[in-house]
Amino acid sequence: MSDSERLVLERVEATFNRQRVMETFGVKLLKAEAGLVELGFSHAQALTQQHGFLHAGVLTAVVDSACGFAALSVMPPDAGVLSIEFKMNLLSPARYQRYRAVGRVVKAGRTVVVCQGEIVTNDETQPPVTVAIMTASMMVVQPRAGEPAP
Amino acid sequence: MSDSERLVLERVEATFNRQRVMETFGVKLLKAEAGLVELGFSHAQALTQQHGFLHAGVLTAVVDSACGFAALSVMPPDAGVLSIEFKMNLLSPARYQRYRAVGRVVKAGRTVVVCQGEIVTNDETQPPVTVAIMTASMMVVQPRAGEPAP
Amino acid sequence: MSDSERLVLERVEATFNRQRVMETFGVKLLKAEAGLVELGFSHAQALTQQHGFLHAGVLTAVVDSACGFAALSVMPPDAGVLSIEFKMNLLSPARYQRYRAVGRVVKAGRTVVVCQGEIVTNDETQPPVTVAIMTASMMVVQPRAGEPAP
Amino acid sequence: MSDSERLVLERVEATFNRQRVMETFGVKLLKAEAGLVELGFSHAQALTQQHGFLHAGVLTAVVDSACGFAALSVMPPDAGVLSIEFKMNLLSPARYQRYRAVGRVVKAGRTVVVCQGEIVTNDETQPPVTVAIMTASMMVVQPRAGEPAP
Repeated sequence: MSDSERLVLERVEATFNRQRVMETFGVKLLKAEAGLVELGFSHAQALTQQHGFLHAGVLTAVVDSACGFAALSVMPPDAGVLSIEFKMNLLSPARYQRYRAVGRVVKAGRTVVVCQGEIVTNDETQPPVTVAIMTASMMVVQPRAGEPAP
Repeated sequence: MSDSERLVLERVEATFNRQRVMETFGVKLLKAEAGLVELGFSHAQALTQQHGFLHAGVLTAVVDSACGFAALSVMPPDAGVLSIEFKMNLLSPARYQRYRAVGRVVKAGRTVVVCQGEIVTNDETQPPVTVAIMTASMMVVQPRAGEPAP
Repeated sequence: MSDSERLVLERVEATFNRQRVMETFGVKLLKAEAGLVELGFSHAQALTQQHGFLHAGVLTAVVDSACGFAALSVMPPDAGVLSIEFKMNLLSPARYQRYRAVGRVVKAGRTVVVCQGEIVTNDETQPPVTVAIMTASMMVVQPRAGEPAP
Repeated sequence: MSDSERLVLERVEATFNRQRVMETFGVKLLKAEAGLVELGFSHAQALTQQHGFLHAGVLTAVVDSACGFAALSVMPPDAGVLSIEFKMNLLSPARYQRYRAVGRVVKAGRTVVVCQGEIVTNDETQPPVTVAIMTASMMVVQPRAGEPAP
């Protein structure tokens, strides 16, 4: 691992670790490269909707974080990230056991970073199923003079 | 309360109660009328992102449910509801104590119901702040012959 | 009309007049206030899709412009506007004769202005039908030193 | 070309030819396979916004059509297609000469077909630039008894 790869990983890890909701949902950081982040998570009864599937908002939380971390990984070192907006399309009911959320940078602008994300099943014995896709716009939040980075 | 108002409330309540994630997030059903549902919830450390605000995915879960219940309230009695897609715009960081999520039906089609939703602060001593807005498309899921309603 | 109202109107008019596509589509500027812009347009055979309705992209063009002008109306005087992203929901086929596109500012941030828009029918003899709704994020484009405003 | 490939091409061509706006915008059908459609178009002064770039709504019209035709190509033979909703992210100003709009089916459901699309520059002497990306939900419109296919 090169120094720059290590810096990306450490930066994403630090932000991931500050997201309490990731721990609450049992999410693991699987991969963090410049412009690409993968998270892993599993079915949990406590997070289901009325049919016993994972709630779409829970899927959204994980893939929004994957996209946000991917965006952060290509931002200036002192910048923070906030979601401006995102759109999810739910393609298949989330009735599976294990999932990966993937976030990828599509366009890194000066003030907005656009990402695409997806939730896919993660079962070694089955071909992956795409459960949902996201497009997200992430804000590059610059620290103001005299304040710590957001 | 008229009979039809009671039927709407009972139907939304039944679906709300089957969403385990609502209990996990501490969400309360505040109002359920034909085409309009309101949910209440509060800040929780376990559901925060890196700056200590409620995670955007948690906001999404609650307002997606509000929209889904609002859509269900105008669907045929034997139909179920699934989110096809939604879009969130995050307008202000979720750094407040108490929130309402409102879902309203904008157009009730035969197979798709379009809703708009919002997250607003819910503090009697302050004017409300709109934290996020959603537009959502909800699928009317008809039961198939020989199967219970979804 | 106050001086500030006149300045808003002149600013929107100037940008409207530079949008060649507005003339090509036969669009008229109906109203321009701080945070609210209305455009009028009519059915045109040259702009139809396969069923003879106005193409969804044409509706999008007009309501995106209404939102963009509304956003511009609340930006600093030297700023320009560019669409970052938008989402359209098509609620009814565009099979009518005359339409209004309305754009409203929902949140005016320092770098992003969020708007909601709609296309409604405009026929004095009939109640209005909402044909489409939009949510849009508009970028505040600051001129760079030595360059004219965009 | 196999019989089924020819049927897809003829079906997309027939719908493309009925979209008057495609002719008005000077759009050409470049490719039509099952689940993938490409359209070509060029800069036109009559379709510009205030900076002289192609208007975002014009880009939307072409890529919405590419997605709609791609969706149609995988639908039952008697079905028609209507856009339910779409989202565009504008990644780069449309200041180029020639473009391709690509629409791809991501998930073909019974009543909704989800597509992703993009606008890329089409200049043999330069690497392609992605100008915009779309996600779209397309309705499978079944003919009703006694009516022609929509």
